[in-house]
Amino acid sequence: MTQDVYTYLQDNRDNLLKKLEEFLSIPSISTDRTYKKDVLQAGHFVADYLKDIGFKQVEIKETGGHPLVYGEWLEAEGAPTVLFYGHYDVQPADPYELWDSDPFSPEIRDGKLFARGASDDKGQVFMHLAVFEAFMKTEGKLPINVKIIIEGEEEIGSENLYPFLAENQNMLTADFALISDSGMVEKGQPTMLYGLKGFTGLEVTVQGPNRDLHSGLYGGAVKNPVMALSHLIASLKHENEQVAVAGFYDGVEALKEEERQLMNEAPIEDYVKTTGVPTTVPEEGYTVNEHIMARPTLEINGLYGGYQGEGTKTIIPSSATAKITCRLVPGQDPTVIQDLIIQHLKTRAPKGVTLDVKPEPLSAKAYKVDPDHPLIQKAADSLAKAFNKETVFVRLGGSIPVVEQLDQLFKIPVVLLGFGTPEDNLHSPNESFPLDHYDKGLDVLINFYNEVAH
Amino acid sequence: MTQDVYTYLQDNRDNLLKKLEEFLSIPSISTDRTYKKDVLQAGHFVADYLKDIGFKQVEIKETGGHPLVYGEWLEAEGAPTVLFYGHYDVQPADPYELWDSDPFSPEIRDGKLFARGASDDKGQVFMHLAVFEAFMKTEGKLPINVKIIIEGEEEIGSENLYPFLAENQNMLTADFALISDSGMVEKGQPTMLYGLKGFTGLEVTVQGPNRDLHSGLYGGAVKNPVMALSHLIASLKHENEQVAVAGFYDGVEALKEEERQLMNEAPIEDYVKTTGVPTTVPEEGYTVNEHIMARPTLEINGLYGGYQGEGTKTIIPSSATAKITCRLVPGQDPTVIQDLIIQHLKTRAPKGVTLDVKPEPLSAKAYKVDPDHPLIQKAADSLAKAFNKETVFVRLGGSIPVVEQLDQLFKIPVVLLGFGTPEDNLHSPNESFPLDHYDKGLDVLINFYNEVAH
Repeated sequence: MTQDVYTYLQDNRDNLLKKLEEFLSIPSISTDRTYKKDVLQAGHFVADYLKDIGFKQVEIKETGGHPLVYGEWLEAEGAPTVLFYGHYDVQPADPYELWDSDPFSPEIRDGKLFARGASDDKGQVFMHLAVFEAFMKTEGKLPINVKIIIEGEEEIGSENLYPFLAENQNMLTADFALISDSGMVEKGQPTMLYGLKGFTGLEVTVQGPNRDLHSGLYGGAVKNPVMALSHLIASLKHENEQVAVAGFYDGVEALKEEERQLMNEAPIEDYVKTTGVPTTVPEEGYTVNEHIMARPTLEINGLYGGYQGEGTKTIIPSSATAKITCRLVPGQDPTVIQDLIIQHLKTRAPKGVTLDVKPEPLSAKAYKVDPDHPLIQKAADSLAKAFNKETVFVRLGGSIPVVEQLDQLFKIPVVLLGFGTPEDNLHSPNESFPLDHYDKGLDVLINFYNEVAH
Repeated sequence: MTQDVYTYLQDNRDNLLKKLEEFLSIPSISTDRTYKKDVLQAGHFVADYLKDIGFKQVEIKETGGHPLVYGEWLEAEGAPTVLFYGHYDVQPADPYELWDSDPFSPEIRDGKLFARGASDDKGQVFMHLAVFEAFMKTEGKLPINVKIIIEGEEEIGSENLYPFLAENQNMLTADFALISDSGMVEKGQPTMLYGLKGFTGLEVTVQGPNRDLHSGLYGGAVKNPVMALSHLIASLKHENEQVAVAGFYDGVEALKEEERQLMNEAPIEDYVKTTGVPTTVPEEGYTVNEHIMARPTLEINGLYGGYQGEGTKTIIPSSATAKITCRLVPGQDPTVIQDLIIQHLKTRAPKGVTLDVKPEPLSAKAYKVDPDHPLIQKAADSLAKAFNKETVFVRLGGSIPVVEQLDQLFKIPVVLLGFGTPEDNLHSPNESFPLDHYDKGLDVLINFYNEVAH
């Protein structure tokens, strides 16, 4: 009987890939208002798919921003209920000129599917939809009960998802949550993620004169906002990569020697090779693996002020802006960290300029789950079986804020079953997803859903 | 006889202003290759004007970049020869949205002519052309011999002017040089500029990973280029506005108490009011007047790296770039200063990134002229007569690199006869030029040319 599900996916592989490419062709960039209609269209794609395969009560839920798609299929009597979460929005694709093929015209090259969202997260969401389709078409039913939420605002902070979760706790009751929005430590290496970093951020603008000024006529009279911002930003971090904000590390769990060893043994990518940097630069006192997996970070995501064109423009810029985000670990409260940074900046604001601080509206605590939980073990086994290799257990530096929300609201285990690879170029030009991870991943999902049903 | 010249300018005021507006309508932005044809068109405007009023040997001299216009009229037997210099190129006009009228559709409001280049320098160049026209039409000749160079690359460093000057020293021999590319300390206050700052600059790029990276997956492994650049830029200047580059102040002339007093008595604009800053911030140990007129400065003209769009993009940017320029005073060699800054940056470059430093190809020493020179006194008297107010003598922070070149090559006095005002918004949105300065300035030029003839 189950064999039919596998066969169905093999027999319909081309059609399903074509359908995935259709999904990826929609430029559902949530951060840019220009793409509002496209984001909506991607939502409709998901909703229509769910309806087509027999989900009940499929709805496009309006929010203050981009809508979310909710659907349920609850006819697996006696079986557990999963709350599956994913997102259909994507990161911006700029700089476009660095893509080898159009980010929204999916192309298969070298066994990989290239497109914005191929890995994060449309490709992985689609795999679940395809597996649901296969179960319905072959067995006429799913092995477990499914409640599914696919949102359109993950890349901009899920502002409207959280109120929806909080207001619909009864409707959303489930035995566990499941998310496929992460990756493996290396291609072909089944990986069980048992910890994620939290997240917080803010934008700071230094305002100087009310217009750009001639640097000869005004240099010596007014504070240069770019220089002022450089001083402020430089003050946030020591050159040894330690964050210099007072209190930033308060409450951070010390790393146990055994965990350090596990982390340092985990196969991770060769960052010098994959990113082209001259050398890696972890926090003083920690290895790269430890810093990435279990130490908090503070990054400047963007900084700009003044002239950026060709040649010289001899001005004192009117203002300068920096976008700052942190990745947090257990023991750090995002709101407290945000406040600490804001206080740090405000107390150091030099005279002659004014500071405008915009806190990121949403943030998330870090998350850790017990790696011995039966569901986690079933997920690890399903991965190992399909990929024919033992699963490793790791923590990673990425943030999936919804994990913390699901954890806190529903008090259920959250299983992170990710199929991406470090070469996927998430948030970068030439995002891709390897087709053998797609194929084996479908097997993992069939295995896992069947295992959980019993 | 001379009265006719004044009358001619009064009678033809409307036509001449229309002609100036035609000149200002040409977007001759030299720094942006998109405007190459417009820059050429502005050159033709000047050449055609000179030909129309009877200049001989008017030529558009091709250079490696934008051409320069040369013309002569040498029939004032026995009278001295002036080498007049100006520029027909302009600064970029962005940000366009901050202009109240189109920068290249000149508009008269509140007694001012608004347009990019109205004051710097098309408007002031045009005044000389109009006065030459008036002399030719009324007296059939000019009071002195004129050699005129109007270039199209002043705003990008005059790279091709200097070889032209050096290679044509015989052709360009003159008794003195004259430039109208500066301003008065306040509107209606005749001002004799006897000193200018020098100039040097460079662009520095910090290169990190070969693409923007996901801040969660790579934060902790690679050096953030924006953070690295912020540290480097912050290290260039102390918070008390002193430049922190070793050797930067070596050789700078100490300010004499009498000069300090003169500077502090000079009427300068109320910077808090005119620029909107909370307070002025001069170098420690100096007043704003002293810092602007006679102390060297280092400014960041632009800095950029990473995401600048709406919302959040959680990346580690691939690179970051800063544009740096300095204004120099007598005793500082631009090349030495450039090298000191480059060394400062290079020795501080952190591991994990590479540094690419692009020195500005051209720079200039500061310039000071003897305020008691007869030509300077005649210029000051002409100003005082037309504006009906005593002329003040000042040094200013702006740089006119050609002044140093003319000084060194030709060993002749350079007279700086500027008609701009501090409210002209040079290099900024809403550049303007007051019409009464235009009108009185024409009288100054007639006075001055007549005075010099004797």
